[in-house]
Amino acid sequence: MTLPAANNRAASASEVLKLVREICLPLAAERVALTHAGGRVLREPVRAPEDQPSFDRSSVDGFAVRMDDATSRFRVVDEIRAGDWKPRQLQPGEAVRIATGGALPGDGLQVVMREDAEREGEFVVVLRRDDERNIRFRGEDARVGQVLIEPEIRLQPGTLGLLASVGCAQPLVTKLPRVLHLATGNEIVPPEETPQRGQIRDSNSTLVRAFLDQWRIQPIQLRVAEDQAAARAALEGSARDADLILVSGGASVGEHDFTRHLLEQFGFTIHVSKATARPGKPLIVAQRGNTMAFGLPGNPLAHFVCLNLYVRAALEAFAGRPAESVFHTGVLMTELPADGNARETFWPAHWRLDDGVATLTPLRWSSSGDLTSLASANALIRVTAGAERLERSRWVEFISTEMTA
Amino acid sequence: MTLPAANNRAASASEVLKLVREICLPLAAERVALTHAGGRVLREPVRAPEDQPSFDRSSVDGFAVRMDDATSRFRVVDEIRAGDWKPRQLQPGEAVRIATGGALPGDGLQVVMREDAEREGEFVVVLRRDDERNIRFRGEDARVGQVLIEPEIRLQPGTLGLLASVGCAQPLVTKLPRVLHLATGNEIVPPEETPQRGQIRDSNSTLVRAFLDQWRIQPIQLRVAEDQAAARAALEGSARDADLILVSGGASVGEHDFTRHLLEQFGFTIHVSKATARPGKPLIVAQRGNTMAFGLPGNPLAHFVCLNLYVRAALEAFAGRPAESVFHTGVLMTELPADGNARETFWPAHWRLDDGVATLTPLRWSSSGDLTSLASANALIRVTAGAERLERSRWVEFISTEMTA
Repeated sequence: MTLPAANNRAASASEVLKLVREICLPLAAERVALTHAGGRVLREPVRAPEDQPSFDRSSVDGFAVRMDDATSRFRVVDEIRAGDWKPRQLQPGEAVRIATGGALPGDGLQVVMREDAEREGEFVVVLRRDDERNIRFRGEDARVGQVLIEPEIRLQPGTLGLLASVGCAQPLVTKLPRVLHLATGNEIVPPEETPQRGQIRDSNSTLVRAFLDQWRIQPIQLRVAEDQAAARAALEGSARDADLILVSGGASVGEHDFTRHLLEQFGFTIHVSKATARPGKPLIVAQRGNTMAFGLPGNPLAHFVCLNLYVRAALEAFAGRPAESVFHTGVLMTELPADGNARETFWPAHWRLDDGVATLTPLRWSSSGDLTSLASANALIRVTAGAERLERSRWVEFISTEMTA
Repeated sequence: MTLPAANNRAASASEVLKLVREICLPLAAERVALTHAGGRVLREPVRAPEDQPSFDRSSVDGFAVRMDDATSRFRVVDEIRAGDWKPRQLQPGEAVRIATGGALPGDGLQVVMREDAEREGEFVVVLRRDDERNIRFRGEDARVGQVLIEPEIRLQPGTLGLLASVGCAQPLVTKLPRVLHLATGNEIVPPEETPQRGQIRDSNSTLVRAFLDQWRIQPIQLRVAEDQAAARAALEGSARDADLILVSGGASVGEHDFTRHLLEQFGFTIHVSKATARPGKPLIVAQRGNTMAFGLPGNPLAHFVCLNLYVRAALEAFAGRPAESVFHTGVLMTELPADGNARETFWPAHWRLDDGVATLTPLRWSSSGDLTSLASANALIRVTAGAERLERSRWVEFISTEMTA
């Protein structure tokens, strides 16, 4: 591992992302039922257990007749509904009534569509007939043993349907990480309480829970005042088994330096204690064995940025997803008033597809504590350090904060 | 309402979408806890209950001093941590130690960063000082009563955090629709069972459940053979209260015409019994009062298309989301072998952002029963009726099958 040498040096966003990828290794895999596999990451190639389809099926509702039988009037000798299995050798002049999805009774047949035939008692008269066989042949979609789904993908409704169709009712997926979230601060009260003067409502617990819910992760959440003894007691029971620990607040550069001391007391090595990117400067990145910990600056917009940038990378790595750049390119719809700030900045924005092009509308952002942009933010624009005014129509890098496959 | 006059006429995709928007009206609203509000659609404007921030807060860790006091050595007369409320009139030569997020003790102050000062016992010496006040002023983000979040948006982690921060702990959101799903067919067996010859595994129940889960909807699901009495019995108890009924299979044009008869027996008016678009031709769209019903053709790719095209529109309308076109524009990365088919076609594809442009890779698709494309499909390309070969680099319309805000 190539970790930053001095843990007091400020790390860039790219350095933190690289570090996260080095620390967070794919968690173990487990088999889960299809009803619980949505959003999980597949860890095995899934093969066809039999030819797909596994028997010749009629793709229409009609009458099966011999290809080599040019008769126009047939005696209907049987009826095959979907689900039936009635093999038989059709004789010239014979037809079998067959429903969509029904198994063909033999080889060398074609199915005349019901609309192209007229029933006359136990006979059927074919009115129109062409070369179309209207059969989905055994194995035409896939052969037995063929890989249908490669590992590392996130299971979506379509892939889950495909798994069901091939009988993979217990797919092997990555275990969900056990996440512990500690919201700290003397100033925070639960959202349903009215803050006293000097206090604010705890929005980070809600944000963290909803963020993790996108990965189907239910964290253990605790709220404590900025008090080492209380925090230690809260962590004591839960921290041991956690794969990921998130501590909100208590990471300011002040003399309290709460999170850092807390994590050090629990045996964590502090790799990063300051980030160059903003918002989110007082970031802590720490490790104890296979457990990853982040100290996230208390202000909610910094939380939003750090979750979508760093914690997302940790979750993807834990899940066993391939390491890919999260940065897209898009075009600015309005000027972005970067102020030549010396730090790389992640600016809240709204992105959408517009005539096939990713467009970005930077949102009003008065300070790193200004939450109002979260009303419509679904992207963060990466503004390079020192950038002055970014003009309209300029191409910029951004990350989408929406989940995708 | 302008419904298609003859219910046997084949309806285009656009006509079905229009019809769905006319039938499905926004459901009633309810208040839910923030922990259950993710993905739900907000039905009220949310206003700031007090100025944001509600008091002057220090944005840094440091020492508050009077703006009009040019002294460089101050006596530290108090300490204010985040959460404290200690108003006082600072005198010249006095400073207050203040933490990030702490409430300023009075007006006319600025906060000197801790890094720019040196503590000497009960005094502090300011080493560097500029015009930066390092204060987030009361109301600078939003004024009391100001609308922070407009209705009709889907609640995402960021918006939930914002709701928590303004004390909206029980947002008003649209009720989830009650959905009943009936998988019919003599040929289907549960995914965990080995199909006998002529049978196939039921993949549609898994697909429908996972699809609805994206809206946090848990449907009632039943699996019945294509037997009117059994289906009626299954529906009897559950159909009465449903907002949406989905029937998989049993909608082929054959003489059984299962779904149509079933819905008619339950008092539904059949508006559409055939779609011009493929896959998904034997589509049934029906209505009984405020209840919407779809008969979805049994093959899973047609299911995937009909769910993402029509059922999605119904869910968005029920949720009270604005009616917007679901069609985006993107560029083909490879040729699409449209075969001049006389019907509008929705072709499975994979889309991604590539240098800021939406690109589409059409997937192999041998027949409407071919599921293998579901391994990686996240888009459906709209191929206009009669289109022959669509060349690489051509712009086409598509819908994304991924959820977005």
